Amino acid sequence: MEQIFTYAVPAMGIIGLIVMAIKSSWVSKQDAGEQNMIELAGHIARGAMAFLKAEWKVLIYFVIIAGIILAWSGTLVENSSWIISISFVIGAVLSAFAGYVGMNIATKANVRTTQAAKTSLRKALQVSFTGGSVMGLGVAGLAVLGMGSLFIVFYNMFVLSVGGDVNGMEMETALEVLAGFSLGAESIALFARVGGGIYTKAADVGADLVGKVEAGIPEDDVRNPATIADNVGDNVGDVAGMGADLFGSYVATILASMVLGREIISNDNMGGIAPILLPLVIAGVGLLFSIVGTFFVRIKKDTDSVQAALNMGNWVSILLTVAASYFIIDFMLPAGELNLVRNPEVTFTKMGVFGAVFIGLVVGALMSIITEYYTAMGKRPVNSIIKQSSTGHATNIIGGLSVGMESTVLPILVLAGGIYTSFLAAGLYGVAIAAAGMMATTAMQLAIDAFGPIADNAGGIAEMSGLPKEVRERTDILDAVGNTTAAAGKGFAIASAALTALALFAAYVGLAGINSIDIYKADVLAGLFVGAMIPFIFSSLAIAAVGRAAMDMVNEVRRQFREIPGIMEYKAKPEYDKCVEISTKASIREMVAPGAIALISPIIVGFAFGPEVLGGLLAGVTVSGVLMGIFQNNAGGAWDNAKKSFEKGVEINGEMYYKGSEPHKASVTGDTVGDPFKDTSGPSMNILIKLMSIVALVIAPHISINPHHNLPDDAVMEIEAEKETVAENVEVLEP
Amino acid sequence: MEQIFTYAVPAMGIIGLIVMAIKSSWVSKQDAGEQNMIELAGHIARGAMAFLKAEWKVLIYFVIIAGIILAWSGTLVENSSWIISISFVIGAVLSAFAGYVGMNIATKANVRTTQAAKTSLRKALQVSFTGGSVMGLGVAGLAVLGMGSLFIVFYNMFVLSVGGDVNGMEMETALEVLAGFSLGAESIALFARVGGGIYTKAADVGADLVGKVEAGIPEDDVRNPATIADNVGDNVGDVAGMGADLFGSYVATILASMVLGREIISNDNMGGIAPILLPLVIAGVGLLFSIVGTFFVRIKKDTDSVQAALNMGNWVSILLTVAASYFIIDFMLPAGELNLVRNPEVTFTKMGVFGAVFIGLVVGALMSIITEYYTAMGKRPVNSIIKQSSTGHATNIIGGLSVGMESTVLPILVLAGGIYTSFLAAGLYGVAIAAAGMMATTAMQLAIDAFGPIADNAGGIAEMSGLPKEVRERTDILDAVGNTTAAAGKGFAIASAALTALALFAAYVGLAGINSIDIYKADVLAGLFVGAMIPFIFSSLAIAAVGRAAMDMVNEVRRQFREIPGIMEYKAKPEYDKCVEISTKASIREMVAPGAIALISPIIVGFAFGPEVLGGLLAGVTVSGVLMGIFQNNAGGAWDNAKKSFEKGVEINGEMYYKGSEPHKASVTGDTVGDPFKDTSGPSMNILIKLMSIVALVIAPHISINPHHNLPDDAVMEIEAEKETVAENVEVLEP
Repeated sequence: MEQIFTYAVPAMGIIGLIVMAIKSSWVSKQDAGEQNMIELAGHIARGAMAFLKAEWKVLIYFVIIAGIILAWSGTLVENSSWIISISFVIGAVLSAFAGYVGMNIATKANVRTTQAAKTSLRKALQVSFTGGSVMGLGVAGLAVLGMGSLFIVFYNMFVLSVGGDVNGMEMETALEVLAGFSLGAESIALFARVGGGIYTKAADVGADLVGKVEAGIPEDDVRNPATIADNVGDNVGDVAGMGADLFGSYVATILASMVLGREIISNDNMGGIAPILLPLVIAGVGLLFSIVGTFFVRIKKDTDSVQAALNMGNWVSILLTVAASYFIIDFMLPAGELNLVRNPEVTFTKMGVFGAVFIGLVVGALMSIITEYYTAMGKRPVNSIIKQSSTGHATNIIGGLSVGMESTVLPILVLAGGIYTSFLAAGLYGVAIAAAGMMATTAMQLAIDAFGPIADNAGGIAEMSGLPKEVRERTDILDAVGNTTAAAGKGFAIASAALTALALFAAYVGLAGINSIDIYKADVLAGLFVGAMIPFIFSSLAIAAVGRAAMDMVNEVRRQFREIPGIMEYKAKPEYDKCVEISTKASIREMVAPGAIALISPIIVGFAFGPEVLGGLLAGVTVSGVLMGIFQNNAGGAWDNAKKSFEKGVEINGEMYYKGSEPHKASVTGDTVGDPFKDTSGPSMNILIKLMSIVALVIAPHISINPHHNLPDDAVMEIEAEKETVAENVEVLEP
Repeated sequence: MEQIFTYAVPAMGIIGLIVMAIKSSWVSKQDAGEQNMIELAGHIARGAMAFLKAEWKVLIYFVIIAGIILAWSGTLVENSSWIISISFVIGAVLSAFAGYVGMNIATKANVRTTQAAKTSLRKALQVSFTGGSVMGLGVAGLAVLGMGSLFIVFYNMFVLSVGGDVNGMEMETALEVLAGFSLGAESIALFARVGGGIYTKAADVGADLVGKVEAGIPEDDVRNPATIADNVGDNVGDVAGMGADLFGSYVATILASMVLGREIISNDNMGGIAPILLPLVIAGVGLLFSIVGTFFVRIKKDTDSVQAALNMGNWVSILLTVAASYFIIDFMLPAGELNLVRNPEVTFTKMGVFGAVFIGLVVGALMSIITEYYTAMGKRPVNSIIKQSSTGHATNIIGGLSVGMESTVLPILVLAGGIYTSFLAAGLYGVAIAAAGMMATTAMQLAIDAFGPIADNAGGIAEMSGLPKEVRERTDILDAVGNTTAAAGKGFAIASAALTALALFAAYVGLAGINSIDIYKADVLAGLFVGAMIPFIFSSLAIAAVGRAAMDMVNEVRRQFREIPGIMEYKAKPEYDKCVEISTKASIREMVAPGAIALISPIIVGFAFGPEVLGGLLAGVTVSGVLMGIFQNNAGGAWDNAKKSFEKGVEINGEMYYKGSEPHKASVTGDTVGDPFKDTSGPSMNILIKLMSIVALVIAPHISINPHHNLPDDAVMEIEAEKETVAENVEVLEP
């Protein structure tokens, strides 16, 4: 029976990839339109691939060096192996491949969506959403297949072949080696998210400053050398960055749940392999039902609501996954009382585990709704920024900062409530499983997320190619829906990163052989402070990097206008590729410093101060990173929509204001400040907190205060001795 | 011997107050200048008193209601008493009185400094610094006298009169009752700091928007109805707010050290009263040596450096206090090995305690230096903002935010290092004593801080009265030095608040009867998240409040211009008092919501979820509050000085820019955004984290999981039982 489940997981991954391939070839077969459209789309596609190639050129060195270090370090401790480096490389390669798949389909689907929009909204939605689905299924399919098959290999290699215990140290070694996969995936995600974030904003700001301001040509004008880089940026940041981010969360969540699943005790016996397999099975089933959901995303006539169609598909996937999870959990997990080795005081039943899955889905949905409220047009937060734009740039900024800070309240309460209730439902396993439940329909979430930038690009191509007005109107409808889903997607991404980091945190504590992270200890508290500071310096570096990279872009665009005669008269073509290259190089150069902080700080703290202080560091970075992420994402989103509101016209104190008015200019300032907030540093927080946790998990056996852990004799004796001293003191104290 | 020390403390407080009275009467006797100067100063003085009166009118209800609740709750638990309410009221009254003293002398010293500046810089420094010293000595004197005499009363009442143990539960009751004093002081500080912060910025922005922008009259023009409110604001925010803040830190630090001092064990016997008395004695000695230091702040001729004179006075106080602390600690504390009841594993000697005092002083000095670097003109951070102003409002904002975030790194590393090393030096008592050491020369620190706004006001009066250029030049020299000391003072204030909060945190854990705050427990982690969110919502409310209060002010100024004819022609006087009243009312109304969050959230969490979750909440609010405080203070300070740099002229890419240029306008936007950051929400973080910790300390006996604590039998048994279960599980787990 167990074998069926074990082998079902990679099988489900393969099904996902087959459906992806079918959908992908369907998109490719669609009409790409006229010659000028194809040409523009070609520039964008080549630019996107140029970014990937340049990124890979750097990453290959990183992967090789890190792989060697991992292979060497894997041999140093009993419960790891040099094979962790293989696992790491596979994770990195699959993550990079997932990024490639997403970029590839997005740069095909954009122009085909434009062409489809000539016919009908229905057709345009079909093309753009199918493009998004390819991305979603690719990411989820590769993750499920990769995790599922590596688990089978390592399970056989480290446990079955030596006749080991499925809940014992042998399984721990198997999972520790599997953690390399997650580390590989998350490392690549860091480069994709941070580099992509810097890229997209450098290109955006650079294109605007020289093109719109200095040369006086409109946005998305083909004469602007940075225009292609700007459109490439949308794909690099919103498609590949988001994809890599969720790929990392997905994998890490499953891994953390598996590590905690190993520790489950059922009626005084160990829980067997079922709790370890469960997160993989839920992920696989969620993938299958995401496929089912995609068929529900359709409109019959052009007047139907696109948002309703997306919601329908989303809820079908979620509800089917919840229902299936109920039966799977009921079937797989042992009956009776369950608890965890290191938390025997929290007992639960298998229905508690189902409850945790449900809680995870509710947390994800609530986070999306709250994020949408704080960034949507027409709602109180954005309206308050609009009103404050009427008194100038400064009050617009103050308004946005205030909204961003306020917007942390509800998400944090939801998150804290989720942690609290999922723990009550199924202990620490519950917290991890809640994250796994939330991530189960990642394929669908990502399809909805990736559809937005495709529609956005489609609109840009329609504009640049001078297509009829109704084409642009149709893509605008899709784009508007895409903006809403993008905001909701960011809420989902930060929530999933937070729960993932917590699940990793819980798994880390187990592997590090400690039983508590006591912030009453001065060194742990110091770790908490330093950890909480890291998101601040990370954000500072990311924001400053956008400024510097934009300057590089500005200089390049100025050079082309100066040195290539005839650009302005459409007689000469600008060297788009140079801009793409400049932006690519700058983004990769600028992401080294923040990336190094994320990778190295847990290693230094862990080895210098031990596992408990590292635990404090992780808690600090998670708490502060989640807050800074929500703050920056929502402030940026709200500023953006406050500016967009002026394009339609807004009423302030009885007067109407439009594009070009003084309040609108103030709102543009806010939007520009918000750009690196919401597209660079804000979303990078997700990766930061996950990557640091996964690094900690990987080094845990090396810094463990007790490699054989699970409360060893000497630790017990130490506690004993300490308690006696305390008891003696109490006697002295109480007369 | 002990009795001598016990009674020496209030005596030292009285000496401080006597010297204060002498200095105060000296200032009052100085010449206040011509009629128009006296009149202007009179308006400012009346405005300041109007604020205090209005504040007190509201506060009296708060104090009565909170006092009744405290009296009632004090009777509910064994180790408290209704007398805590008396202690609370005295703390509140003394804090209010300290604010009165400071405001009173500042509004006298300002005009007398202007008059003195007619003669020489030497004389102007003497008057303004003596004014500052009155504030410093008043705050420290009242604190030492209040704490010292209340301790004698409660020690006699709760310990000696019942023949109790100086290290036992009786002393704990005495200290718990004494905590009421700290709660009273900190509550008033909240109103002073937050209300004052809102007041000063509402008046500033209101005066500028209508006066400078709409009516086109210069800054500090007597025709502007809000001008007096603006000048009052400087006193309300920078003098009274800072004074109340440091009064609160000073008292809370001493209290926390005393609570931890009770738990000291010396060679297997309890440590006696010496470790409890020590923080009081150090505070008293620091006060005396601050008096000595004030005599060193003088220049012989007008070409001497004012900064050097201030530094001389400061270092004399610090070094004498350090030297004296060495002998006091050596004399008072028992020899041999020391440790704490609840942390027997950390042993130290009395020289370790001295080491902690030293560490505290170093941390304070470093924090001041770092803050100065990040906000000073001509240094890299401010220069980077200047450069980014050349590309517009948005890049100026991005630059400031980036600098502010970056500026958290070094202070946090210093703070973490301070926590770590002071704990190594003398356990948790060391962390508290480090804070006490840092605060020992509060009188001197505050004298240096308060001197700045006095000089600032003096310059304003010189300008408004149309005095000769050399007078303004002399006050400008003092003002420039004052700006530097203000920045350093903010660094000192946040560092002292952080260490104070940690000391209170440690004291709280003891009183709450818990032995750890384990963030590996899901509920404690949820508490950490919620706590870390509070500084965000608090900042959001404070920033938004400034916006609303400024609008009230704008409407009032507009009304006066409209309804009082002849203001513009100097024929009618504006109703300054109306503006003062409006600003006062608005600030007090707006600070209710943030104040309520600070006061109520620990009570709700403590009673609903227990002491350990409350511990998580406190850790969250402290870590996040320190970061947000540093970020906002430094971003605001850097923006301010970037703007000020344009007044002198700055070079960007080879071109010179001055006041009125486009980059200067962008820098004004940054300065306006920075105003509420650095004068309202940033400094409020200090109070927020201290007040929440002190509330927790006061409710600790009520939520204690074990009123008799210090590790009771049943807790020991519980731990025992849990450990057996774990051990059994391990057996099951390991084959």
